[in-house]
Amino acid sequence: MAETKVVEKVKNKQVKAKDYITGNPKETDMYLSSSTISLQLPPEASNAVLVKNLYLSCDPYMRGSKKPLKDRVFDTFVPDSVIVGYGVFKVLESKHPDFKTGDLLWGVTKWEEYSILTNTENFFKIDHTDVPLSYYTGLLGMPGMSAYVAFYEIGAPKKGEYVFISSAFGAIGQLVGQLAKLMGCYVVGSAGSKEKVEILKNKFGFDGAFNYKEEHDLDAALKRYFAEGIDIYFENVGGKMLDAALVNMRRRGRIVVAGMISQYDISEPEPIKNLVSIIYKQVRIEAFTVFDYYHLYPKFLETMLPYIREGKVSYVEAFAEGLDNGPAALEAIFTGRNPGKQVVVLSHE
Amino acid sequence: MAETKVVEKVKNKQVKAKDYITGNPKETDMYLSSSTISLQLPPEASNAVLVKNLYLSCDPYMRGSKKPLKDRVFDTFVPDSVIVGYGVFKVLESKHPDFKTGDLLWGVTKWEEYSILTNTENFFKIDHTDVPLSYYTGLLGMPGMSAYVAFYEIGAPKKGEYVFISSAFGAIGQLVGQLAKLMGCYVVGSAGSKEKVEILKNKFGFDGAFNYKEEHDLDAALKRYFAEGIDIYFENVGGKMLDAALVNMRRRGRIVVAGMISQYDISEPEPIKNLVSIIYKQVRIEAFTVFDYYHLYPKFLETMLPYIREGKVSYVEAFAEGLDNGPAALEAIFTGRNPGKQVVVLSHE
Repeated sequence: MAETKVVEKVKNKQVKAKDYITGNPKETDMYLSSSTISLQLPPEASNAVLVKNLYLSCDPYMRGSKKPLKDRVFDTFVPDSVIVGYGVFKVLESKHPDFKTGDLLWGVTKWEEYSILTNTENFFKIDHTDVPLSYYTGLLGMPGMSAYVAFYEIGAPKKGEYVFISSAFGAIGQLVGQLAKLMGCYVVGSAGSKEKVEILKNKFGFDGAFNYKEEHDLDAALKRYFAEGIDIYFENVGGKMLDAALVNMRRRGRIVVAGMISQYDISEPEPIKNLVSIIYKQVRIEAFTVFDYYHLYPKFLETMLPYIREGKVSYVEAFAEGLDNGPAALEAIFTGRNPGKQVVVLSHE
Repeated sequence: MAETKVVEKVKNKQVKAKDYITGNPKETDMYLSSSTISLQLPPEASNAVLVKNLYLSCDPYMRGSKKPLKDRVFDTFVPDSVIVGYGVFKVLESKHPDFKTGDLLWGVTKWEEYSILTNTENFFKIDHTDVPLSYYTGLLGMPGMSAYVAFYEIGAPKKGEYVFISSAFGAIGQLVGQLAKLMGCYVVGSAGSKEKVEILKNKFGFDGAFNYKEEHDLDAALKRYFAEGIDIYFENVGGKMLDAALVNMRRRGRIVVAGMISQYDISEPEPIKNLVSIIYKQVRIEAFTVFDYYHLYPKFLETMLPYIREGKVSYVEAFAEGLDNGPAALEAIFTGRNPGKQVVVLSHE
């Protein structure tokens, strides 16, 4: 005799995309929507998890570009679909062998209160809750892993080396700089405002920082800070900054390419004039995606958790409360005024 | 009672440079000269060796460029000085603890019959004489090591990968292609004449080859041979060829930079337009110098000697007999007509 279980249906607030976007997202590219959801996985949902979203992450990759990133693992903006992005969430029910009710996870989720997620490949279980859960959207999540991979795996740093970071105020740049300082490197960053330059020097402990908008000659600016040249350039900008860095690299220097922000919204990329100089100094240029390095997550935690617990890493968060404030929060990270990692808080538990 | 030993003085024919050179050397940039030499090391010559030169190597690096290679280990052309280059030589007398009379060595020597050499840092003892001694100027010397390092160390190849080699007819390109075939890769090369293209396919076993001078659209040419893209690009050309390769790289592809021939004699290097594409495919670009990898020479011999003994590697040599024919032989390698590795033979033993 079949037993009929009455399943509670609850409201599920969502943020959806109006359309595909090009360039930076605006608040008006998104809209609030509401549906209902049964807080139980349907029988056919094998390997799926039902989760309650706690913290949603606003990240610089959540934009459109003229040139699609072909190897992107997911699309953030699909017309009339819920926004997709990283977050921290709690498992309410699981049909996946690796996860059980009550587990706290971080990974790719959706901008809604409750989600049924089937793409569980890059979920990470949160075992350490003595640090703020929201950190798993940043310092202990994808941006933190990106900084770790960029610096240790691709950069292959040695104590005392000279490190230059463009777009140093970004979530990843900030952390790369601090990791470099902790290793005993000399660290200089570039950023786009006087305020950011001051914060890099005073809060994040950079040895130097400059406002690239005030430099007419980027080569001269780099020579001012790197009389002996650059061992590791953490590249996030492209174009003229890359050209200036190329002629200032030291022998066997490494250029770690996380992005080339200046190149995404122009129809023809700016030509690079000084690539040939890598021959004279045996330079390595390497682009990477964090997705290829997630197997190092346990090793990453071994490095980062002690740094956080001992207060050796500075980290600033900005919280937007509730999904209603999500679209504005996402827009804000592209206007260059946010003071730290932007997180949308749905629930604290 | 001091014993006075009568030391034989012999004629020592030499090839000297008239001046510094820019661009490719011509026969007329050099002149024959003759001096005498005592076939005994002077008492003050500690750590020096007196050698008889047997084979001298003509290599593409023996030229002048507008941009000096700052990290070059030696200068080939210095006014009124004997030409410097790689060779195979026999030790007549040694004050260096690592070498003794009768040793056969290869390394950096001078274009003369007898030399007193003090820069013994990159000398290699020749222990295997069942292969032609002249091979130690090429296949088993610096060019061979360069190919080995380029392919195995920087290229990090896997069986079945797609390999493209520009300037594939050069000593290093030929060998990289053959090593790639021996590993089970798909190999295509570019060269500058129909004859070279045929030899690459028929003699060196390349899967394909094309004459870049006959291709109006290098991107289309690469797409014709690499429908699924390139895993390893052995880069020797720069400029337009590099730009075409950049947009045809596969995910996590590697560009091994041995040189950028097309860029050395122009006052401004050609701008590279497609560097940004490395981000979309997580490409690594790495320039190297063989000097950083000479510690791998024993490992290299373990790989190459069996290949040579089993006839698995094709290698062509062109011999010029005597120092008198040296200047013309060196000029010839830059005219693009030589059929193989150019060696100047001074003595067979």
